[in-house]
Amino acid sequence: MDYAKLAKVVIDRVQSHETIIKAFTQFQPEKIIADAQHLKIGPLNGLSVGVKDIIETADYNTEYGSAIYHGYRSVEDAACVTLLKNAGALIAGKTVTTEFAFFKPGKTVNPYDYGRTPGGSSSGSAAAVACGMIDIGLASQTAASLTRPASYCGVVGFKPSVGRYNSAGVKYLAPSFDALGVITPTVNTAIVADSVLKGPCFQETLLTPLKPKRIGFCLTPWWQEGEPEMHEALEKLVEQLSHHVDVEEVDLSDFSDGAELHLTIMAYEVAQSLAWEFEAHKALLSKEIITIIEKGKNISRTTYDTAQEQARALRQKINILFDTYDVLLAPAAPGVAPLQEEGTGSPLFSRLWTLLYLPSLTLPGLTCSQGLPIGSQFLGRYGQDEQLLAYGLWLESILPPRPKLA
Amino acid sequence: MDYAKLAKVVIDRVQSHETIIKAFTQFQPEKIIADAQHLKIGPLNGLSVGVKDIIETADYNTEYGSAIYHGYRSVEDAACVTLLKNAGALIAGKTVTTEFAFFKPGKTVNPYDYGRTPGGSSSGSAAAVACGMIDIGLASQTAASLTRPASYCGVVGFKPSVGRYNSAGVKYLAPSFDALGVITPTVNTAIVADSVLKGPCFQETLLTPLKPKRIGFCLTPWWQEGEPEMHEALEKLVEQLSHHVDVEEVDLSDFSDGAELHLTIMAYEVAQSLAWEFEAHKALLSKEIITIIEKGKNISRTTYDTAQEQARALRQKINILFDTYDVLLAPAAPGVAPLQEEGTGSPLFSRLWTLLYLPSLTLPGLTCSQGLPIGSQFLGRYGQDEQLLAYGLWLESILPPRPKLA
Repeated sequence: MDYAKLAKVVIDRVQSHETIIKAFTQFQPEKIIADAQHLKIGPLNGLSVGVKDIIETADYNTEYGSAIYHGYRSVEDAACVTLLKNAGALIAGKTVTTEFAFFKPGKTVNPYDYGRTPGGSSSGSAAAVACGMIDIGLASQTAASLTRPASYCGVVGFKPSVGRYNSAGVKYLAPSFDALGVITPTVNTAIVADSVLKGPCFQETLLTPLKPKRIGFCLTPWWQEGEPEMHEALEKLVEQLSHHVDVEEVDLSDFSDGAELHLTIMAYEVAQSLAWEFEAHKALLSKEIITIIEKGKNISRTTYDTAQEQARALRQKINILFDTYDVLLAPAAPGVAPLQEEGTGSPLFSRLWTLLYLPSLTLPGLTCSQGLPIGSQFLGRYGQDEQLLAYGLWLESILPPRPKLA
Repeated sequence: MDYAKLAKVVIDRVQSHETIIKAFTQFQPEKIIADAQHLKIGPLNGLSVGVKDIIETADYNTEYGSAIYHGYRSVEDAACVTLLKNAGALIAGKTVTTEFAFFKPGKTVNPYDYGRTPGGSSSGSAAAVACGMIDIGLASQTAASLTRPASYCGVVGFKPSVGRYNSAGVKYLAPSFDALGVITPTVNTAIVADSVLKGPCFQETLLTPLKPKRIGFCLTPWWQEGEPEMHEALEKLVEQLSHHVDVEEVDLSDFSDGAELHLTIMAYEVAQSLAWEFEAHKALLSKEIITIIEKGKNISRTTYDTAQEQARALRQKINILFDTYDVLLAPAAPGVAPLQEEGTGSPLFSRLWTLLYLPSLTLPGLTCSQGLPIGSQFLGRYGQDEQLLAYGLWLESILPPRPKLA
C-alpha cells in the first residue's frame, strides 16, 4: 500500500467538509501521515476512524466535551481504539461529543441542513460519516446517543447488545446502559467493524443478507409524541416491507414504564459517575448535567433497586416477543433533526430499547418531504447481534438509498 | 473535631506497622494533615480509608501495580473515592495491588506470618485493615481478589452484587465481573461503608442482626482441592451453626462448570481490557498477565458467547436455591495463606460465586491449628446485599472473634 497516498486521501476527505461541518475536536494531518507509516496490516486495510471524544487515546487529548478536562491526555488508548488500530485502521482524529455524552451540544452541524443539529451525543462521528469524511465513527449510547444522530444524519447506526464491546478507556455516564457502537455508511462496514470490536482478535463476522420471516412493528407507547412526517415515513416503510414479509403491529403497552425506568436508573448512575466533577468543578458543568445529577441525588436506593428489578422483568418479557418476531421495527427519533437552537433532540424513542439491553440497528433511506433523513430502528434479540446485522443487510436492500447530500 | 489530632492518629496507625507490612504504595503524612483540615462533615466522621491502587485519585498517583503507569496521575478522583470523601472519610493513601489486579504479587506481607502472602489482588487493603492501620480498605474482585485476601488476613470482606457500586475511575480487568467492595474489621463498618458507596448520597443502611432460618452448606465441586485444615474449620462451624439454625448440605454438582466458565469469560475480557498494554508495552508485563491475555486471544467469540449464555442459565438456577436457603456457606479459599514464594493463592473457591454475580461476605474467626486465619464465605441472593449484611451481623456474633495478631 502507498501509505503517503492513503494518508493524503484520509486528510483530504476530512478537509473537504470540516470547515463547515465541524465534526472534529482534533484533526491533525501530521499525525495521520505519521500513523499511516506505521499502519498495521489487517482486515480494516486503512479504513479511517473517527474516535468520539469520550474515548481515551494516547496520541490525542480526550476532553469529554468539557472544560474540566481541557488538555487531558491519557496514558493509553482505549481497548476499542487498540483493537481497530491492530486490525489496520487509520485514526482520523477525535470527533465532537456533547458534554460527557449528555445533552449540551458541541459545534457540529447537520450535513443535510447546517441550521440543524446532527443529534447527540455522537454528533461528530455521525456527521463525519454522513458526508464521507471517515469510514467508521466510534460512538456510544446511554439513552439515544447513537441511534438519534444516525437517524438525523442519514447513516447506519449499530448499537450492540449492552456489553458486546469492551469499554475500557471510555468515560462512564450510566454504566448499566453505556454501550460502545459504530456509525457507518453501510451495514457492511458496521459488520467489518464488528468483526474487530467483538474480540481481542479479529474474527470475521461472515454474514449474508437474511430475510426475516416476521417483523413486529412497534408504534411504541410514545407514538403520539412523534412528528406526522415520521409517522408517514414509517407507515410507508411498513407497507413496503409487507410486500416481502409478514409485518404485524405489536402492542407495547406492557412496556410503557420503560422510558421512565430508564431515566430513573440513568439519573442515579450519572450522579455517581460524575460525582467528582460535580463536587470539584460544578461551575464548569452545564445546567443540563447539573439538573440530571441533582435529580439522581434525590432518588432513593430503594427506588433505584426497584427500577432495576422492573427492568429485569421487562427484559424477560421482551425476550418472549422474539419467539414470534425475528426483528422489531420502531421509530429511531421523533422526527427529523431539530434546529440547532432547540438542542440535540429527544431521546424518548430509544430509552426503552436501551433499558432492555437490545442490539439496535438504525438504517437510513426514509426522508421527510423536504428530503431530510428519518431513520428506522430495528431491534434484535439480546445477544443475537450478528443475526440482527444479517437482517440489516436484507433490510438495507429494501429501503431506499441514503438521501443525497446537497 | 480536632483535625490535627485526627490526622496524627491516622498517620500513627499506619506508621506503626508499615515498615514491616508494606501495605501502601503511597503514604504521605503531609497530605493526610492537609486533607484533615478540609475534612467534610459526614457520617464517616474521619474514618480512614486505604484506596487500592487500581482506583484513580487526583491527589495520589495511580500505578495499577505496573511499571507501565509509573508516575501516572489522573485528573479526577474515582466515583467511590469522591463519595467516601464527601461522607467525611480521610484518605490514608493508596494500597498495594497485584499487577492490574491479577496475579503478580506486590510487596505486602501477611500480618499473621510475614513469610506468607496477604492474598491478592487487594493485598494492601486487607493487610492494612488486619493490623488496624485503616478502618476501610477499598478493594475489588474479578475472580477472588477480595474474598481471598480477606480470608488470609482474618478480616471482613464484602464483595457486593456485581454493579452495586459505581466503578467510574477504576481500571478494567474483566468488566463482566469487576466489582468494587470493601475490607473492614467488622460487619458494621462494612455496613457504614455500604451506606455511602451504594448511592450518589449517603443513605443509611439501617440493619440489625438477622438470624437466617436455613443455611445451605456448599462443599462445592472443588471441596477435595481444599486443605484438610479448611475442611475441619468449616465443618466445625457448620456444627456450631446447626445449634441455632437449620444447616443443610447443598449439592452443587449442577454448577461444576462454573469455575471453567468464569475463566473463559475472564480471559477473553482481560485480553480486550489490556489490549493497549499488551501491544505497546508487552516487555513490561508479567508472564502471568501475558499468559491469560494469550489464552483470551485464542478463545473464539462463539465460545465466549456460549459461556455467557451458560452463565446466565446458572444465575437463574442459583436464584431458585435461595427460595430454600436464606444464605449459602462455602469455603473462602483452599486453606490458609500460602508462603510468599508460592504466589497470592488460588482463586478456585470464588470463581463460581463471582460468575453468578452474588453478593459475598467473608467473615473471620476460624483458624488452623497454628492460629492462622481461615475465612468463611457467605453468599446472598443477587441484589439482596443488605439482607446478607444483616445475616452477617448475626453470623459474626456466632463465629469466634478475629484471631489475635502476635
